[in-house]
Amino acid sequence: MQPGEKNKLKQLEKIRHSLAHLLALAVTEIFPEAKLGIGPAIDNGFYYDFDLKKLAENDLSKIEGRIREFIAVDLKFKKESLTWEEAKKIFKKQPYKLELLGELRKTKTPITIYKIYEKSPGQPLFTDLCAGPHIKSAKEIDPAGFKLSKIAGAYWRGDEKNTQMQRIYGLAFSSAGELKEYEEQTAEAERRDHRRLGAELGLFLISDEVGQGLPIYLPKGAMLFHLIMDFAFNTYLKNGYQPVATPHIASEKLWSRSGHLDFYKDSLYSSFGIENENYRLKPMNCPLHIQIYKNKTHSYRDLPIRYTEMGTVYRYERSGTLHGLTRVRGFTQDDAHIICAPEQMPEEIKRALKLTLYILTTFGFKDFEVTLSIRDPKKKSDFIGADKDWRMAEAALKYAMKETGLSSFKYDVGGAVFYGPKIDVKVKDAIGRKWQLSTIQFDFNLPHRFGMTYIDEKGEEKEPLMIHRALLGSIDRFMGVYIEHTAGAFPLWLAPAQISVMAISDKFSDYARKVAAELADNCFRLETTDANKTIGKRIREAELQKIPYIIVVGSKEKDNGTVNVRHYQRGQEGEMSLEKFIAKAKSEIEKKI
Amino acid sequence: MQPGEKNKLKQLEKIRHSLAHLLALAVTEIFPEAKLGIGPAIDNGFYYDFDLKKLAENDLSKIEGRIREFIAVDLKFKKESLTWEEAKKIFKKQPYKLELLGELRKTKTPITIYKIYEKSPGQPLFTDLCAGPHIKSAKEIDPAGFKLSKIAGAYWRGDEKNTQMQRIYGLAFSSAGELKEYEEQTAEAERRDHRRLGAELGLFLISDEVGQGLPIYLPKGAMLFHLIMDFAFNTYLKNGYQPVATPHIASEKLWSRSGHLDFYKDSLYSSFGIENENYRLKPMNCPLHIQIYKNKTHSYRDLPIRYTEMGTVYRYERSGTLHGLTRVRGFTQDDAHIICAPEQMPEEIKRALKLTLYILTTFGFKDFEVTLSIRDPKKKSDFIGADKDWRMAEAALKYAMKETGLSSFKYDVGGAVFYGPKIDVKVKDAIGRKWQLSTIQFDFNLPHRFGMTYIDEKGEEKEPLMIHRALLGSIDRFMGVYIEHTAGAFPLWLAPAQISVMAISDKFSDYARKVAAELADNCFRLETTDANKTIGKRIREAELQKIPYIIVVGSKEKDNGTVNVRHYQRGQEGEMSLEKFIAKAKSEIEKKI
Repeated sequence: MQPGEKNKLKQLEKIRHSLAHLLALAVTEIFPEAKLGIGPAIDNGFYYDFDLKKLAENDLSKIEGRIREFIAVDLKFKKESLTWEEAKKIFKKQPYKLELLGELRKTKTPITIYKIYEKSPGQPLFTDLCAGPHIKSAKEIDPAGFKLSKIAGAYWRGDEKNTQMQRIYGLAFSSAGELKEYEEQTAEAERRDHRRLGAELGLFLISDEVGQGLPIYLPKGAMLFHLIMDFAFNTYLKNGYQPVATPHIASEKLWSRSGHLDFYKDSLYSSFGIENENYRLKPMNCPLHIQIYKNKTHSYRDLPIRYTEMGTVYRYERSGTLHGLTRVRGFTQDDAHIICAPEQMPEEIKRALKLTLYILTTFGFKDFEVTLSIRDPKKKSDFIGADKDWRMAEAALKYAMKETGLSSFKYDVGGAVFYGPKIDVKVKDAIGRKWQLSTIQFDFNLPHRFGMTYIDEKGEEKEPLMIHRALLGSIDRFMGVYIEHTAGAFPLWLAPAQISVMAISDKFSDYARKVAAELADNCFRLETTDANKTIGKRIREAELQKIPYIIVVGSKEKDNGTVNVRHYQRGQEGEMSLEKFIAKAKSEIEKKI
Repeated sequence: MQPGEKNKLKQLEKIRHSLAHLLALAVTEIFPEAKLGIGPAIDNGFYYDFDLKKLAENDLSKIEGRIREFIAVDLKFKKESLTWEEAKKIFKKQPYKLELLGELRKTKTPITIYKIYEKSPGQPLFTDLCAGPHIKSAKEIDPAGFKLSKIAGAYWRGDEKNTQMQRIYGLAFSSAGELKEYEEQTAEAERRDHRRLGAELGLFLISDEVGQGLPIYLPKGAMLFHLIMDFAFNTYLKNGYQPVATPHIASEKLWSRSGHLDFYKDSLYSSFGIENENYRLKPMNCPLHIQIYKNKTHSYRDLPIRYTEMGTVYRYERSGTLHGLTRVRGFTQDDAHIICAPEQMPEEIKRALKLTLYILTTFGFKDFEVTLSIRDPKKKSDFIGADKDWRMAEAALKYAMKETGLSSFKYDVGGAVFYGPKIDVKVKDAIGRKWQLSTIQFDFNLPHRFGMTYIDEKGEEKEPLMIHRALLGSIDRFMGVYIEHTAGAFPLWLAPAQISVMAISDKFSDYARKVAAELADNCFRLETTDANKTIGKRIREAELQKIPYIIVVGSKEKDNGTVNVRHYQRGQEGEMSLEKFIAKAKSEIEKKI
């Protein structure tokens, strides 16, 4: 970030924070009985919490108008230090401020207030307990750069045992242009919200009767899921991976040995018994893949071994944090474990990283942000593995990134998993948001815990290295991200319904059916729309469903043995022979565009 | 069965039962301290339980020899009735017989014994408590038709709280030829045992650390599983089914509404809690598919709807009953639910049945045994649904069987599920054993319980009908059966490794690599054998792994740009161009032969 940009951000934060104070001033003017909570600056503006039950959405315009007047008359902000006793007097009618004051006293924090004046010195219009910083003068605020946005309930200090207060949110930016840009992006994000599109396009549902965080895939969603999974799975097989398949539950004997019962217990669901033995839903596939490795003796000639499984795992998430497909309680990973000799490790990481880029670019992602997470050298005891292992692993990961053209990675010191360092890849979506997807992780823990070995060239038993990697990450989460990235307009190879064929009138239904039959024979996925509706309505429906191709046939097409083609994004493509259309569409599928 | 055959079977049962008595006579002669349990005829012979700890496997030949002498001297069997007091005297030294006598007295059952004489009347050689019937004379036994086979432990009366006794098993048939045939079939079944082949061919393992009844698929097994599943899934999609995908766990709210918590509780695993709500592993997919149906309003024009899911379900089985892949605790069904209007039902059943035959014959099964399971008209209260529904359903099922050329079905009266009648299809495997695989079931229960509806032509709300169907049944079980059917020699389209390429010596390794690369480019699945071993060893290894094709290349093949082909079952196929081999193999895959 440039120094100028940094200063601008600091000023913006002051503006936001000052707007929160002006908001509180306006509210207490209009509703003198209002009890004040806190009012900080946030990412896109500010808020203030009031204990004021009567506050309603339609009060906002009046309050906002009053704030604009404060800006117009250029109110001033002024900081003062004072003693706890003085502060207590000032806030004697504000119980929440008194509670905060009590805590400041306990921690012996110096007490400061901010006063708002029309003219200083004199009687302030408003005084708030606050460490600042604030702007000096309300004129620093661009009145076109802010607006009050909504009221929401919020428990005092975020604790549901406390009073529920009324929180007024405001958006605030340096200028009207920036506010507009933000609002447009928000509207765009909303338009792309995969939960809304999931319902509109018939992709998935979440049912309270089944359970929160457990997506149920409707036919089109299940098809998309299948196509994504199939592509990943077949790509891995072509790249030297072997398929494996393991159960979704396993005895606690296994999770105890793997360490999950200790290190991962907060993510595990509770146990259930089968004939005096306790079982758990699997949170990870690794210990099961290790069973497969250990099923026979391995020689150095067998390595590297790469096991892949589209493995469904279950991990606990609090219901408040669940979100569509991107935060769920059960999901399918495009998982794999690579087991290799130490000298094979750098090349294996490189291969995995190259494969990551291939997979992600095939789905149309172009911008990546790569993070190398290492352990905090000051907290070595929180991590498993010897110094030399960590050095070797870090070097291998760096080598792989350099070789893959990803030299401009970020470090996340302390961000490693307890069992080893890792590379994480974020993608930037069509509207610039970043999403964590791929992960490639070293593991110094499991090979040792499970006593994995191989026989080296000299006939000696050695411990292999293990890498965990998931390139799409969770296919469910990936689908959520991908729906938002594409706004639900999937490329031909992934569209659950690829083509909708319709006749301009009943007279040409036979020809439309013939065309549809030929397309079906060529393995295209067809959408049928209700032939009783008008052609205009049917086209509109197919467009709402974001079907890539609409084929319309009428008298001319029937006579010429052709089809009239319209593409969802590229628009009208005109009349062409059915053969030409089939060849063209097949080539698009082949090229995955 | 012909009357003659029936008589022959009755006589064989007498022979088996009489051999059990002769066995007891021989044992008590050699070990006078032996305490006698029971000794019935069984399917392939007979057994007798003795409380005789010192009995050892190497005593069997002596005992068997003694029985042969009894046959040679033609001992006689004779039945007598007697009072309980008389019987008590005879068996005063046999505590187990006394226990049985006590029970006969309680139930006032008339008491009969069988005596064995060298010459009657006179002192019998042996007396047993027995209702018979027996043969009259030991000469009726063909001494070449029986043999003692093994000793096994068995709890008195099958209760593990009782004494463990020594059970001697014998095989017995009408002739030496029949015995030999039986032994050959048993050996053949053993040779085909999918548990043994599963280990030898690297298909699956069951790990105590993970849990009993939870198969873990090794790379080759996972590939076979994937290929079978993929074929079924794609076949269903081509036949008008829509894919869906649902979670493996669901809230008890769902299982309570569906009735599984009541009607199916013995098969359910215990619950586990997530945030004050209880969840269960899903035993069936149906209630989840119904959530999908109910997600929107349906018109008669949408019907029939056919949802398919390769759905993994978990059902409790006692550990004693678990068996390889054919009896497990978690398995994947090639499941589907067809929801249709009543008038569509007969055609839908017919389609499902035709699809069943297509799927099963594609896997090489030719003989089918079809059962129509209906309710017991005397126990209507055990079943849900009105009389007219059952009549309609039975008629639809019969119509479908007739139309599909399966008119010679069997009835199983009372064999219907509580929610409706069903068709079950058994296949006969390569050695004549029958296996239950496919099922097509009516459901009068769930549509009503879940309030499923559709809008008919008149705009009125109607309840649709629902069919459950799984054609392979459980893919895991199917794999077990299929391994035994093929003895692990899979056809090319399903073989996890299809081709093994090897050079006759190091000099031709380059050419072998080139051939392998071209085959890999053509999407064949290749097996690599250790190039350090001799060609003979490598061929032997590939044959033990039952790889369909072995390609050997040497000087001649390199010069001619050809390959030398050997098929696992058809043997040597000679030299041919690589192009010709590729075309030939592709055609075999295409034809699924």
